[in-house]
Amino acid sequence: DIHFDPSTHPHRRLNPLTGEHVLVSPHRTKRPWLGQTEPPQQSNLPQYDPQCYLCPGNTRAGGQQNEKYEHTMVFENDYAAVLPPPGPPAPPAPHPLLTTEPVQGGCDVICFHPRHDLTLARLPPKDIERIIEEWCRIYKKRGAQEGIEYVQIFENKGAMMGCSNPHPHGQVWSLSAVPSLPATELSNLRKYSLATPPSDAPRGPLNRSCLLCDYVHFEATVAQDEGRVVLKNEHWVALVPWWAIWPFEIMLLPYKRHIPSIVHLTPEEKASFAEILSRLTIRYDNLFSCSFAYSMGIHQRPVPPKSDAVPEDQDEENLAHLHLHFAPPLLRSASVRKFLVGFELMAEPQRDLTPEQAAQRLRGLSDVHYLEVPD
Amino acid sequence: DIHFDPSTHPHRRLNPLTGEHVLVSPHRTKRPWLGQTEPPQQSNLPQYDPQCYLCPGNTRAGGQQNEKYEHTMVFENDYAAVLPPPGPPAPPAPHPLLTTEPVQGGCDVICFHPRHDLTLARLPPKDIERIIEEWCRIYKKRGAQEGIEYVQIFENKGAMMGCSNPHPHGQVWSLSAVPSLPATELSNLRKYSLATPPSDAPRGPLNRSCLLCDYVHFEATVAQDEGRVVLKNEHWVALVPWWAIWPFEIMLLPYKRHIPSIVHLTPEEKASFAEILSRLTIRYDNLFSCSFAYSMGIHQRPVPPKSDAVPEDQDEENLAHLHLHFAPPLLRSASVRKFLVGFELMAEPQRDLTPEQAAQRLRGLSDVHYLEVPD
Ligand SMILES: O=P(O)(O)O[C@H]1O[C@H](CO)[C@@H](O)[C@H](O)[C@H]1O
Ligand SMILES: O=P(O)(O)O[C@H]1O[C@H](CO)[C@@H](O)[C@H](O)[C@H]1O
Repeated sequence: DIHFDPSTHPHRRLNPLTGEHVLVSPHRTKRPWLGQTEPPQQSNLPQYDPQCYLCPGNTRAGGQQNEKYEHTMVFENDYAAVLPPPGPPAPPAPHPLLTTEPVQGGCDVICFHPRHDLTLARLPPKDIERIIEEWCRIYKKRGAQEGIEYVQIFENKGAMMGCSNPHPHGQVWSLSAVPSLPATELSNLRKYSLATPPSDAPRGPLNRSCLLCDYVHFEATVAQDEGRVVLKNEHWVALVPWWAIWPFEIMLLPYKRHIPSIVHLTPEEKASFAEILSRLTIRYDNLFSCSFAYSMGIHQRPVPPKSDAVPEDQDEENLAHLHLHFAPPLLRSASVRKFLVGFELMAEPQRDLTPEQAAQRLRGLSDVHYLEVPD
Repeated sequence: DIHFDPSTHPHRRLNPLTGEHVLVSPHRTKRPWLGQTEPPQQSNLPQYDPQCYLCPGNTRAGGQQNEKYEHTMVFENDYAAVLPPPGPPAPPAPHPLLTTEPVQGGCDVICFHPRHDLTLARLPPKDIERIIEEWCRIYKKRGAQEGIEYVQIFENKGAMMGCSNPHPHGQVWSLSAVPSLPATELSNLRKYSLATPPSDAPRGPLNRSCLLCDYVHFEATVAQDEGRVVLKNEHWVALVPWWAIWPFEIMLLPYKRHIPSIVHLTPEEKASFAEILSRLTIRYDNLFSCSFAYSMGIHQRPVPPKSDAVPEDQDEENLAHLHLHFAPPLLRSASVRKFLVGFELMAEPQRDLTPEQAAQRLRGLSDVHYLEVPD
């Protein structure tokens, strides 16, 4: 009788946040790669680029001049994907299957630092804390606006991930509707909290169970040796989730208590957040000795509480548990990525190494950035 | 009062096949593109490449020698994503959230033609008919195998879509489980057929309504002037669906009667299928005068009927309606693609021009391939 071995036998894993599966084909990394390779990442950037529309003092595409900022800078995207309210009402549907829902909102850009050549991986944790404070400010400000139902904070890093400017920056899109993926996650968190009796893990509002608290409690305290955990500090864990799609996908989340959003973080939890963001992005760069491309997104309560009339642990809207997803495309080296194409687009995501193998690789790396290793 | 204009006002459209939305931001194409550009498509390929592992008579990575094939050739992938049954039983779950489902199956490669330098767009419809026959054979053969529950036929075309060999070929992955996306589509087709009274459109089994028959009937016969239809012939329509994600996404499907799968096609319907595949891929190449990259997948009944005991129109499994999805990444030119990254990966897909605008561009192109235009 053969015994099931996750690093030999193809299998599917369920993502309980989305209800979707991933096909794991661990033996597939043996396949030689003859396909497209990525151009090398530009690594000798100047500290200041007179052509960059995000550098301090420069002029942007829309004609505005940037402040001579010293830490972070926020402005509204000149080519926003959504426009401010009010918008016209929905038109009648020409057929019941052809519905239109007008969307309003705003798109902000956050420059992480004045230096053109730095990234999260090269910033001291103190500077990352300033970015976290900026995220909190925008999330609160946009979330308090009339008609805004959802705030998505994200970063596209690297040309491979559609980022058109290496100057360190992220984006925040605020919308009058909750987008598909977070809506699905929230609905699955809700179903779980109603259907699952509480365990030893921290609990969500109304003393109910929380899918992510249960999951991260298991990973960080019970399953440690099985090894999907990459990094852990006082308050946060970075792990390759059981259901990861991208080769070195990471979920980063607090594990000591249920935390609905970044505005619910204590000062210590924020410092600890900055520290683990720094260590995680350093390891990413160290994996293939390059400025590692990824898309990162923060999932949390759609908008902060509009008032504090309801106590935190009684507010059902607090069932969201703050977490970050990192989706990096690289698979084998700085120039060979994973393509999520035919089968993945038409059937379901497929990965070529197990999450446990990916976590092991990431755990084995140094906490010192490869460009900062003393000779 | 402002009136809603789909080519000006950002809005969301619902995909009834998946239950997910797409954010349409039509004004966004005005944005200048400073990001990554794609390397030019190799256009001067030899008719025969001695290094190509798919050319007739050559030796493959696994050591086997290809036949000197004259039309199509099928072989099992040397680096299959799934392995043949039987496999070991599922291991116990270490936690209820960490479930494993072993998967078995097989992966086939179909060479479309002996010529290394041709693609669907450069093949006469008669040769495309031979590929359709090959798809039917594999779908029947794999679908009849013990334990196979789903057969996914697809093509990755172009280096941009992870294809590692320009020799014209496609793939077929056959699995012991129905993957996430087709499972969702089938479940939404089923719900619709139970909830929606039949209309003038063709009907599915048990005389019930069919979401895709209703939709394509509306597009091909009622909404014609609104213009999402790109091409139409005797039996088939190619259209940019109302809910398209990729800039020039196409859904290709039969519209005259309900057809569960490729084995249900009549000889005339197959000839008409080959004809429209030819015209569609020619237009794709003509759009930016390049060999247009895409992923294509066939969605249909998961496997053919195992017997003909139940009449076609009484068999509930026939509620699937055959359709092809084309997912091409290019947006502005042969070298500028759409990146589905940060917001798209973390929240929901976003597109930069309306489906109607995309269909209009595609309709305006010639049926003669740009490389075959006489001087
Ligand atoms: O099997 P191929 O063509 O080598 O590989 C390609 O298609 C597969 C199926 O869509 C993907 O999983 C791979 O990432 C891609 O490179
Ligand atoms: O807004 P940017 O950085 O110009 O654009 C980038 O991020 C957006 C949000 O994920 C995507 O829609 C674009 O395709 C991508 O190129």
